[in-house]
Amino acid sequence: MSLKRAGVLGATGSVGQKFILLLSSHPQFKLHKLGASFRSAGKAYKDAVTWRQTATIPESATELTVVECKASEFADCDVVFSGLDSDAAGDIEKEFRDAGLVVLSNAKNFRRAPDVPLVVPLINVSHLDVIARRLEAVASENKKKPGYIICNSNCSTAGLVVPLGALQEKFGPLDIVVVTTLQAISGAGFSPGVPGFDILDNVVPYISGEEDKLEWETRKILGSVDANTSEFVLQNDTKVSAHCNRVPVTDGHLECVSIKFKQQPAPSLEEVKRGLRDFVSEPQRLGCPSAPSHAIYVLEEENRPQPRLDRDRDGGYAVSVGRIRPDPVFDYKFVVLSHNTVIGAAGSGVLIAETLLAKGLL
Amino acid sequence: MSLKRAGVLGATGSVGQKFILLLSSHPQFKLHKLGASFRSAGKAYKDAVTWRQTATIPESATELTVVECKASEFADCDVVFSGLDSDAAGDIEKEFRDAGLVVLSNAKNFRRAPDVPLVVPLINVSHLDVIARRLEAVASENKKKPGYIICNSNCSTAGLVVPLGALQEKFGPLDIVVVTTLQAISGAGFSPGVPGFDILDNVVPYISGEEDKLEWETRKILGSVDANTSEFVLQNDTKVSAHCNRVPVTDGHLECVSIKFKQQPAPSLEEVKRGLRDFVSEPQRLGCPSAPSHAIYVLEEENRPQPRLDRDRDGGYAVSVGRIRPDPVFDYKFVVLSHNTVIGAAGSGVLIAETLLAKGLL
Amino acid sequence: MSLKRAGVLGATGSVGQKFILLLSSHPQFKLHKLGASFRSAGKAYKDAVTWRQTATIPESATELTVVECKASEFADCDVVFSGLDSDAAGDIEKEFRDAGLVVLSNAKNFRRAPDVPLVVPLINVSHLDVIARRLEAVASENKKKPGYIICNSNCSTAGLVVPLGALQEKFGPLDIVVVTTLQAISGAGFSPGVPGFDILDNVVPYISGEEDKLEWETRKILGSVDANTSEFVLQNDTKVSAHCNRVPVTDGHLECVSIKFKQQPAPSLEEVKRGLRDFVSEPQRLGCPSAPSHAIYVLEEENRPQPRLDRDRDGGYAVSVGRIRPDPVFDYKFVVLSHNTVIGAAGSGVLIAETLLAKGLL
Amino acid sequence: MSLKRAGVLGATGSVGQKFILLLSSHPQFKLHKLGASFRSAGKAYKDAVTWRQTATIPESATELTVVECKASEFADCDVVFSGLDSDAAGDIEKEFRDAGLVVLSNAKNFRRAPDVPLVVPLINVSHLDVIARRLEAVASENKKKPGYIICNSNCSTAGLVVPLGALQEKFGPLDIVVVTTLQAISGAGFSPGVPGFDILDNVVPYISGEEDKLEWETRKILGSVDANTSEFVLQNDTKVSAHCNRVPVTDGHLECVSIKFKQQPAPSLEEVKRGLRDFVSEPQRLGCPSAPSHAIYVLEEENRPQPRLDRDRDGGYAVSVGRIRPDPVFDYKFVVLSHNTVIGAAGSGVLIAETLLAKGLL
Repeated sequence: MSLKRAGVLGATGSVGQKFILLLSSHPQFKLHKLGASFRSAGKAYKDAVTWRQTATIPESATELTVVECKASEFADCDVVFSGLDSDAAGDIEKEFRDAGLVVLSNAKNFRRAPDVPLVVPLINVSHLDVIARRLEAVASENKKKPGYIICNSNCSTAGLVVPLGALQEKFGPLDIVVVTTLQAISGAGFSPGVPGFDILDNVVPYISGEEDKLEWETRKILGSVDANTSEFVLQNDTKVSAHCNRVPVTDGHLECVSIKFKQQPAPSLEEVKRGLRDFVSEPQRLGCPSAPSHAIYVLEEENRPQPRLDRDRDGGYAVSVGRIRPDPVFDYKFVVLSHNTVIGAAGSGVLIAETLLAKGLL
Repeated sequence: MSLKRAGVLGATGSVGQKFILLLSSHPQFKLHKLGASFRSAGKAYKDAVTWRQTATIPESATELTVVECKASEFADCDVVFSGLDSDAAGDIEKEFRDAGLVVLSNAKNFRRAPDVPLVVPLINVSHLDVIARRLEAVASENKKKPGYIICNSNCSTAGLVVPLGALQEKFGPLDIVVVTTLQAISGAGFSPGVPGFDILDNVVPYISGEEDKLEWETRKILGSVDANTSEFVLQNDTKVSAHCNRVPVTDGHLECVSIKFKQQPAPSLEEVKRGLRDFVSEPQRLGCPSAPSHAIYVLEEENRPQPRLDRDRDGGYAVSVGRIRPDPVFDYKFVVLSHNTVIGAAGSGVLIAETLLAKGLL
Repeated sequence: MSLKRAGVLGATGSVGQKFILLLSSHPQFKLHKLGASFRSAGKAYKDAVTWRQTATIPESATELTVVECKASEFADCDVVFSGLDSDAAGDIEKEFRDAGLVVLSNAKNFRRAPDVPLVVPLINVSHLDVIARRLEAVASENKKKPGYIICNSNCSTAGLVVPLGALQEKFGPLDIVVVTTLQAISGAGFSPGVPGFDILDNVVPYISGEEDKLEWETRKILGSVDANTSEFVLQNDTKVSAHCNRVPVTDGHLECVSIKFKQQPAPSLEEVKRGLRDFVSEPQRLGCPSAPSHAIYVLEEENRPQPRLDRDRDGGYAVSVGRIRPDPVFDYKFVVLSHNTVIGAAGSGVLIAETLLAKGLL
Repeated sequence: MSLKRAGVLGATGSVGQKFILLLSSHPQFKLHKLGASFRSAGKAYKDAVTWRQTATIPESATELTVVECKASEFADCDVVFSGLDSDAAGDIEKEFRDAGLVVLSNAKNFRRAPDVPLVVPLINVSHLDVIARRLEAVASENKKKPGYIICNSNCSTAGLVVPLGALQEKFGPLDIVVVTTLQAISGAGFSPGVPGFDILDNVVPYISGEEDKLEWETRKILGSVDANTSEFVLQNDTKVSAHCNRVPVTDGHLECVSIKFKQQPAPSLEEVKRGLRDFVSEPQRLGCPSAPSHAIYVLEEENRPQPRLDRDRDGGYAVSVGRIRPDPVFDYKFVVLSHNTVIGAAGSGVLIAETLLAKGLL
């Protein structure tokens, strides 16, 4: 099979660097175009970037010439991964979409747009059906294939909805979700990201906009698609309350979650554990190359998951759930850990692209 | 006024060192006896201790000879502060009490005993009335003054109950409290305490026994004393659910709290803030020297309190509350910060002693 | 005595905040003018600053109106403390000096100027004689008192030269100094300062320009003043080689130092320790209020000094030296710890001002 | 080729866990026996160990039954890797050797023994010739193959000697080496290892015995073997002085090094860089499977190497050298980074075993 040509927008930033790492050795995609600001345009990637990853710059990227983020430069890309900041993403991603390109975005700008799927690939790739139907409609009219945008979720949302989605699939909607996050600093980017003086020997109990994203995005992702209108319907059965904190951890978001099921009596503790342990995600069923071997690892040790020890399970594409126990106020409480720059950001985009390919939509 | 003679048990440990720091320059107490294990007994304190505090060893302690933790050694102390570990505290504190000594304990052993007040001095010094009545009864019978034990609470409980107690005093009992803690490592002691390899670039979502302490102790402290039986009655109107985490912070416990009031409609956001801001604790009213100028600081900045910036307010005897905001599931959510080794441990003991003195009980 | 009027330039930055803290409760100075960029000018200080200190904003600063850093605004100040960044300091400090003001600068711009004393107040306040002579000369001609600039040293230099200067005073010049620094992040400022992602679970073995500063400034400070020309003569007997590293510590620079004396045989280990322990600095002799009780603490514990435990000795105005031992290549090796934002920055400026006052130069 | 049977002593400790990780997927060895204390003996490995590695427990180890560290239990092992602590290693390793076993030890006990090679495999596998000759001698007498012990070096020594050995091979012996280490905490083990309270927001300028190890072991490793007596001759041309520090980093030792060559004039900066860059180690030449692709990476960025970014190069078997620059006192200074638990500990043992195999000594 010939490799699909991938573009990366915001290629010198933290999310862009991760896209490049994940795509450089990918069996289905090859790095084709790297876009950044006009200051970087024209330079070899290795000269334009301040590389901050543990792995060295992939050879396939090192000599690529950086271009500006204009649709015309990316016209021959099969798919474009956007790691742009939200202040740039709005205009650029729209231009790309309007030019007929497929944009997989990590930015927040279009997540709440009524025609844009917001996808955590381990949970709601069914939302991509909206794209499928749109493409079918166009094809039946013999029109040119249109561009579209698909967003992955906010990083802390991605970790949360995996166990929630698995439980909802098995036991019906949740009534209440209370979540407190302990988030790694890599999610804030590199330059400057979280200042060192703010985070050494400290915790910051605030991340701008984050609580609202967790509370809103969770309900779109756990929601459904109206079969007639193709509109996204929020899961309004579920009330979500979030506290968000930044902690001195490099990678890996930990979330303390309390839940109450809609249907009472709630499933038993053993049923909940089994429901999580046995959950199989759609990308696994589709055989996507980056899909984890287990979507959810249920850990039985009393003090796990921990960011440093568990964030890299299945390359960061799996989520770990531990300390599942009864809650004196609700039904259950547990701890979720997810790798915020893999399943919580660039890796989600890659897994969405693999799913599109598996479904014949790319 | 002559200074009261203070003994310290577990004087070489982390809590003991803090007691010594706080008492060494105290206007009402003087260090009189320092107790530690038989291995330390007979040595000058400076030779027995591995001092781990920022301030240097107080001169009043440095040459004191360490003695074993036997009641006979402490017979002439007016009050004994115990920083013993729970494996030693049970037998020793009992022996001291039975020998007629006043023991202010930081250990967990007697916190749930029906005749032992569990006191966070900013909130429930009214529980000390049980002691007052007992002493009066004995005095009226011309019996020898008996010994007694008073416990301060677990460190994370101490921070939580201050705003909860202030709100309960003003607006009646709470219905639901959901709390997630981000706890500093100093609470676990020094040798070894939390291993460095567990806590660098990491978070540990588990502290043995801590969640149960938070859920139980909160209800004893917010509870009342039966006027007839002098028994402590738990605040059973209030359901508490806790998640406890250890984070890479040296001092200062941060807690994310969601609350629902029993009485509905709940007070307004402004009333809640004012209720916290205007709260005056009993030790303040009594003019205790270590009492904070404000029991609760209500912070309006969107990203405060933070452990490193706010833990030392009023010498660690005050509690900071920030981010008070409506909660989409309950009534309100907020963040509390308390200094775990001051108001959460040794400082609580000192403030209880000052209160006893002010009330004529010492 | 009436308080001297102090101005602070760069008042919203990290060094400026520290100046404000140190001056707010000072027995000889009062905060009179606060200067910052035009964006801050006109605002109350509390509204202009993002306060990042542990202590709360001093009341004497909170309502002062911030002005632009123009000499005309500071005309009635007795002394101006500059915490400006080096990109702004050059022009502004020159303007202030030319307008007749006394500028005590923390910036690097004028440290190497032939007419500007570079002063670490525990070591070379004798360099201020140049100012004294200049003022005398002007006074004898009945001219207007001129402005002048005095610089404090780079933060890592300040810690190093204290033991070196004490040893040179006692045992004559050093031949070789090899130093490796482990520097705290507060020296790099707040916004952004050292990015968190660079310093969590990491060390950065490079600080721009720092090694050159250590190697050069040390020789100016340990140097002398030519009695005829009033020129500063570098201590060229001493060769200095530096390695500089940034480590995940909030405050406190640790430096590992190896030295060889010019005169051989070198003093004995005991003589070296005594020389350091008995060293008394000029600000101590002059009775300056911020002078430490000991300029140098010689620690005998095998694992001290440590940043968190020792940085605050004597309010950060003292330096700690430990692990003094023979060196298999040179004469001796030892470890120095200094508080980089007190004796290494703002505190040095304050102590210089106190010295000027004590010498009648202000 | 059939796999050699490997035993691991101290299998539940931190070094033992790393041996198990490295050997579990090794092309030449298989895990055959796991030894630990009598408390663990009889349990399945997964039940005996508190696993602290990022990767999960290898399947090949999980169900192996732990045995006591007695030679009779390991009689059928081809090679035994010892991760024992020094308090246990002395007696046990001697017993194993006397029983005819090949012991590759990470402990310090036999490093200075006159008949035990001390080997950093990237530098002095030539010291293994002593073993070869001993085996030949025995073979020629038709005696039973004797056991022997080979030690790898202390972790900070392993990083240092790689560039030193490469330079000595090319430019002759060094005259002076001054080194300051910034060492990760993983070298101190897990339980408790470095206490968290000692290392958060702190640096400890002392590691027991470490400076002496660096100063002595370096000279044995850079030394030679007397062709007649087979005795190890220290490299006494080279004087080494070390300062050792523990820093808040999980893995990766950084070392700041100043050097002076014996032969003057010294090689040029460019020659030094080329000498390091072109260095090829013996395990590379022998095709050992764990040998790095480059023994030394010479980094040109001004702020590298950094522990978090560079420690994993070539799986931790390569060493990174950066900031090579002239030194104002000596000839050159530079920074070395090595992975302390791979090339600095267990990985060294594995690479020695591969070398023995490649040389036909196993």
